[in-house]
Amino acid sequence: MECCQLGLFGWGTVGGGVLEVLSRDGGLIRARCGLDLRLKAIVTRTPSRVRPQPAGGAVVGSDPALILDDPAIGTVLLMVGGTTAAYDLCLRAIQAGKHVVTANKALLAVHGDALFAAAAAKGVGIAFEAAVAGGIPVIAALRDGLVANRIEAIYAILNGTCNYILTTMEQENLGYAEALAEAQRLGYAEADPTLDTDGSDTAHKLALLARIAFNAAIPLAKVRVEGIQRIGFLDIRSAHTMGARIKMLAVARQRPEGLELRVAPTLVPLDHPLADVHKNYNGIYMVGDAAGPTLLVGQGAGPLPTASAVLADVVDVCSGRYQVTAKRFTFFQGGTQPTFLSESDEHTGSYARFVVPDRAGILAGITQALSTHGVSVLSIHQGEPAQGRAMIEIVTHPLRGGAFLSAIENIDRQGLTMESTVCLRRL
Amino acid sequence: MECCQLGLFGWGTVGGGVLEVLSRDGGLIRARCGLDLRLKAIVTRTPSRVRPQPAGGAVVGSDPALILDDPAIGTVLLMVGGTTAAYDLCLRAIQAGKHVVTANKALLAVHGDALFAAAAAKGVGIAFEAAVAGGIPVIAALRDGLVANRIEAIYAILNGTCNYILTTMEQENLGYAEALAEAQRLGYAEADPTLDTDGSDTAHKLALLARIAFNAAIPLAKVRVEGIQRIGFLDIRSAHTMGARIKMLAVARQRPEGLELRVAPTLVPLDHPLADVHKNYNGIYMVGDAAGPTLLVGQGAGPLPTASAVLADVVDVCSGRYQVTAKRFTFFQGGTQPTFLSESDEHTGSYARFVVPDRAGILAGITQALSTHGVSVLSIHQGEPAQGRAMIEIVTHPLRGGAFLSAIENIDRQGLTMESTVCLRRL
Repeated sequence: MECCQLGLFGWGTVGGGVLEVLSRDGGLIRARCGLDLRLKAIVTRTPSRVRPQPAGGAVVGSDPALILDDPAIGTVLLMVGGTTAAYDLCLRAIQAGKHVVTANKALLAVHGDALFAAAAAKGVGIAFEAAVAGGIPVIAALRDGLVANRIEAIYAILNGTCNYILTTMEQENLGYAEALAEAQRLGYAEADPTLDTDGSDTAHKLALLARIAFNAAIPLAKVRVEGIQRIGFLDIRSAHTMGARIKMLAVARQRPEGLELRVAPTLVPLDHPLADVHKNYNGIYMVGDAAGPTLLVGQGAGPLPTASAVLADVVDVCSGRYQVTAKRFTFFQGGTQPTFLSESDEHTGSYARFVVPDRAGILAGITQALSTHGVSVLSIHQGEPAQGRAMIEIVTHPLRGGAFLSAIENIDRQGLTMESTVCLRRL
Repeated sequence: MECCQLGLFGWGTVGGGVLEVLSRDGGLIRARCGLDLRLKAIVTRTPSRVRPQPAGGAVVGSDPALILDDPAIGTVLLMVGGTTAAYDLCLRAIQAGKHVVTANKALLAVHGDALFAAAAAKGVGIAFEAAVAGGIPVIAALRDGLVANRIEAIYAILNGTCNYILTTMEQENLGYAEALAEAQRLGYAEADPTLDTDGSDTAHKLALLARIAFNAAIPLAKVRVEGIQRIGFLDIRSAHTMGARIKMLAVARQRPEGLELRVAPTLVPLDHPLADVHKNYNGIYMVGDAAGPTLLVGQGAGPLPTASAVLADVVDVCSGRYQVTAKRFTFFQGGTQPTFLSESDEHTGSYARFVVPDRAGILAGITQALSTHGVSVLSIHQGEPAQGRAMIEIVTHPLRGGAFLSAIENIDRQGLTMESTVCLRRL
């Protein structure tokens, strides 16, 4: 039996989840793979807060040296959010020669290049299964399970808060604000939900997945991001009219001309498996040239699912496997420098909702403008006119983003519409 | 760049898939993780058959010594079916100190104990990601990704032939024989489909998953198996009436009293994610105490998906990671000796279809008998009588199998039914 001494930075929700799973299932891990995981020290900003005490009598304090200066601690669990204190602690742990296991996606999406380089220089690993899609082992599935596949595309629902809000709006006929309030009440959304709802969190996760999938340096600025804050109940209903459901979708696609990366509320056709990923669940749909499509669905957040991924990483690190991974896989060093496609060069289906005056010739004018710009229409729906206005909705076949945007601009400029046109992407 | 020399036993469909993916994406693997995979020799019973030549000029012959006696070949890809010649080759490869990567589930389900022991004695590994659910990296997800989870249950669709037949029967209103013929025409079923349709293949795969999940020796005889050969179009339609869809379901559940293992056509409620796993796809729904439910869906067979898994294993072996896995994880040594539950002690929902005479009091008699045996009914459906007969269908809440079977026997014995009652399990 091999004993592995661990140090934990951060005793919040996720840190508490790790303690819980370790105390409940530590014996199971010992029986399965002969690793005796021992939490030796916990460093928290609030050491005096009353909490359930950790099993095995870990020392609790507020001084990082408690962990950093203890040579017996070989692996650090960095369960601290943000990119400032977490960056500092991560770098110091690496410099102290310790492996790092973290759930902090922002940290790695923003500072990954520097941190991975520092870790390589010290011969330690940074493991981050918990940083993307919580309990779903998607990092390992993509990196190792699909290693022999050219990844053609990743479509993913990576933020449980957004998915909970969008699902609740649809299932309970609520507006955005009411659904957000319910998500907050149930603990699926933070008091300040901005990082989730504006798409930043999803973008961080997508950048990490794309780094592995395309073996490439992915500057965050190359991920186009649109939030869900302006999605209203009308959009949810419109999506249904068009045979789809709105999901906050992360997309990474390798096209001949370059790499397409974006996060945006997107119409997902009802017969696509991601349309059935509901509530706080996450789902990742990956298309490889050998395996074909692979779908992974599970709980993307929460203390226990995240702890499941953290401890999977700890086993990987403490067994010595992760050091092989960290040394071998070139994505840690940034890999290749891909071409990133701009919005106008991306290739996607689109949805548009035109509010138009109720008079003859409008539909003809719109379809003429679409045709002029080479926009191929998949379907059109025209609502009943009321009070002199009508709604025309279209979805298009996949086409160059630029062509679609030009067509919409042209239609609005011609005065065919009474309000600015609402546009969404469609998978 | 590290060069890894490989030997391939068996140049059939799967072997050909490995050659294809290796020649197409070998460069990608080199770029991703610095491993230069070289196929040095191919041993096949039919070396003279005309086939696309392998890239890199592998030697082709029929003598196993071509691989077994070549000290430069460190890893053997065993792509031979059955349990006789494959067993012999596997053992000889191990004794020659070579790691083995195989897609042969029957081999490991039947001879796993002996082969894993032989491998441990020689310090080599047997990797088998491709043996279960083809391109879906479920072995690694269960073994490593969920290592910190007590696995409560696995529900899985593991045989693409069965799933294709059942899906086709439902979607195209076909009987079993017609659907099988279509599956054969499209290459989803073999000329002799028995091993697939009778559930043996699914049982092999379930035994491997259960071995990992429950860290236990799983004798194949402990897996109850029912085939799909007697499923008719009426069963498919009845399932729909009861809000479900029939799937060939592998079930492994840890209950307080013991382990439940079975393979059988099962009514899966339409709102369960496995109900949407169609055609030749596989799906695995695993419930862990920390991660909660995780669903994996993808292509479970076919040369390219299988090759994807084989090459993932090759990377794992050639990087040295798999040796750590093989040495650490105790399931290779058989793990614990669980209690296996008998059919009467299993706990499952059930479906029954009674064909009854069209006269008063029958439904009352049936519900009375169910109640007497403690069977709790979830729903009942009574069809229109015709020609003096009627059909009564019920589904039950989960309950002891013994109670349900006694109730059915009692009902048939009382003469309430005109034909012997059709029973199926319900998830």
